[in-house]
Amino acid sequence: MTARLLDLLGIDLPILQAPMAGVSSPAMAIAVSEAGGLGALAAGAGGVEAARAMIGAVRARSNRPFNLNLFVHAPARRDPAREAAWIDRWRPQFAQAGAAPPDRLHEIYTSFARDDAMLAMVLAERPAVVSFHFGLPDAARVAALRAAGIVLLASATSLAEAQAAEAAGMHAVVAQGWEAGGHRGCFDPDAADAQTGTLALVRLLARRIALPVIAAGGIMDGAGIDAVRAAGAGAAQLGTAYIASDESLADAAYRAALLGDAAQHTTMTRVISGRPARCLPNRFTTAGATIAPEEIPAYPVAYDLGKALNAAARTAGQTGFGAQWAGQGAPLARAMPAAVLTRTLAAEIKA
Amino acid sequence: MTARLLDLLGIDLPILQAPMAGVSSPAMAIAVSEAGGLGALAAGAGGVEAARAMIGAVRARSNRPFNLNLFVHAPARRDPAREAAWIDRWRPQFAQAGAAPPDRLHEIYTSFARDDAMLAMVLAERPAVVSFHFGLPDAARVAALRAAGIVLLASATSLAEAQAAEAAGMHAVVAQGWEAGGHRGCFDPDAADAQTGTLALVRLLARRIALPVIAAGGIMDGAGIDAVRAAGAGAAQLGTAYIASDESLADAAYRAALLGDAAQHTTMTRVISGRPARCLPNRFTTAGATIAPEEIPAYPVAYDLGKALNAAARTAGQTGFGAQWAGQGAPLARAMPAAVLTRTLAAEIKA
Repeated sequence: MTARLLDLLGIDLPILQAPMAGVSSPAMAIAVSEAGGLGALAAGAGGVEAARAMIGAVRARSNRPFNLNLFVHAPARRDPAREAAWIDRWRPQFAQAGAAPPDRLHEIYTSFARDDAMLAMVLAERPAVVSFHFGLPDAARVAALRAAGIVLLASATSLAEAQAAEAAGMHAVVAQGWEAGGHRGCFDPDAADAQTGTLALVRLLARRIALPVIAAGGIMDGAGIDAVRAAGAGAAQLGTAYIASDESLADAAYRAALLGDAAQHTTMTRVISGRPARCLPNRFTTAGATIAPEEIPAYPVAYDLGKALNAAARTAGQTGFGAQWAGQGAPLARAMPAAVLTRTLAAEIKA
Repeated sequence: MTARLLDLLGIDLPILQAPMAGVSSPAMAIAVSEAGGLGALAAGAGGVEAARAMIGAVRARSNRPFNLNLFVHAPARRDPAREAAWIDRWRPQFAQAGAAPPDRLHEIYTSFARDDAMLAMVLAERPAVVSFHFGLPDAARVAALRAAGIVLLASATSLAEAQAAEAAGMHAVVAQGWEAGGHRGCFDPDAADAQTGTLALVRLLARRIALPVIAAGGIMDGAGIDAVRAAGAGAAQLGTAYIASDESLADAAYRAALLGDAAQHTTMTRVISGRPARCLPNRFTTAGATIAPEEIPAYPVAYDLGKALNAAARTAGQTGFGAQWAGQGAPLARAMPAAVLTRTLAAEIKA
């Protein structure tokens, strides 16, 4: 299974760097890809020009394959009353930071589901691999990308999502377990979530779908990679392992939290962005623990406020509102250059 | 690590049958132990005489090692007002079954933490292995059991609990991941739960404690066993895999649910017993999904009502209130004799 997947992806090691919008960088992708893994660029949280620039930055220094990640969330269902109440709810925290909340919230990311400009850019640039999070593009988009020779991956948190990915023409599935840091890839964030752990999910998908499976969630070292491969995955995708790398965009506070006691207490929250995401605990997640999902605006509308609140707090020299995403493997994070980490992982792999 | 653990437990295969009160049986324990694994008896939910009888039933047919499991929960903090409100809350469901709820609730299980009669019985019978769930006995009990030559295991859902087990003199730790079916072993059910998945937990404990680690949660076949061993466990404990075995006490409705679509939607609930436990979804868990933990009586007081409600419903020919515990591996459950399953698992193991 591993040989088949590595051949598909054009890489030497069964190691994918997770895309991690806000944390990854072209330098990280270059380091991982040049070391024999698959580096990734997060294009879901920026526009077309930002994505094109990241691709250019990688290609200026590497001709190895890389993965361009796109968000395919269902466009936000707007709810003006809920959004206004949400702004009011956080007014005291803005006031503590000496700032006013935004007057209104915006849908800050365009879903690839309806982003024709992004599709045109991707077809023109033709990254070796494109991966989808939060859902699947329509048949026409998939057909166009496949016709361009691009290998397509999609996140799945359940057998049903994996089967949908298979039916939609993906080349492989990223099995995202409950352990995983950052945004959970559930296609419908309001549906019941079985919260399936990486081990159980990988094994189930390996048994029930024909596509190669890439395991994600809680994998931090060579033994973790060996474990998911024993469970039937062809490769592992690691995000949290790279947060403390030199090429990461994580700031000092984020790195300190990751390497401290908080790492043992990651929490799944939707308060920051409007979708469930695993995060190091902070003031934001604590306050959010008692808020009903029905009160939180849709993703990424809620994230507009979350980012504004974090920016206001930081300007005032306060901490506690950042999106410090991390998975349950966080206690095993290592601070080193991404290339060194990738080579270390390769050396640790036994299988 | 596996050789060390098998030597400690006196078994041939890296396979432990989970104790599973209400599902396991002496026949199941015999089948697993005779096949080379470690069978288990659940003594936490019965009294001393029930435990002695189960031990006798096993010894009449096998001289292989087995594991006697005990509950070491903190004795329930009683709350008459909460318990009365709890009885009232379920009055309509009792009425639908043509029954009246109990007038008052009782602490139906005695914790081994204060059960001197159970200690005396265990010291007299001397099972090869004793395992603890929900906590650890005090130093005097541990010393007495160790002096009797009994190998001691304890469940841990976090590094802190595993470190406590190590400090208390356990011989090995059962790393119970979020995937696991039945009651979560958290020492304090009211403390924040990091919900750590099996893969992340096993790897963390393998890296941070010196004791052998037994992995539990989501393991259903030889590849699952290989996976957790690659992650650093010496053996795997399987519960859900044995629910559909011939020797299981699971009734027909439970088996049908386990082998149906519900298997993909297990849910963690504390409504049935007062402590978080992973269960197949049913009327009880659905109703419980909107109930705040503060409203639920302490374990095992709430379980007194849960068992009464299930009994009343069954008497009326209704279903939906049973404690149909199952882990996230449930979709891979197989119906076969426990000995055949154990031998099949052994044949599937590659490592």
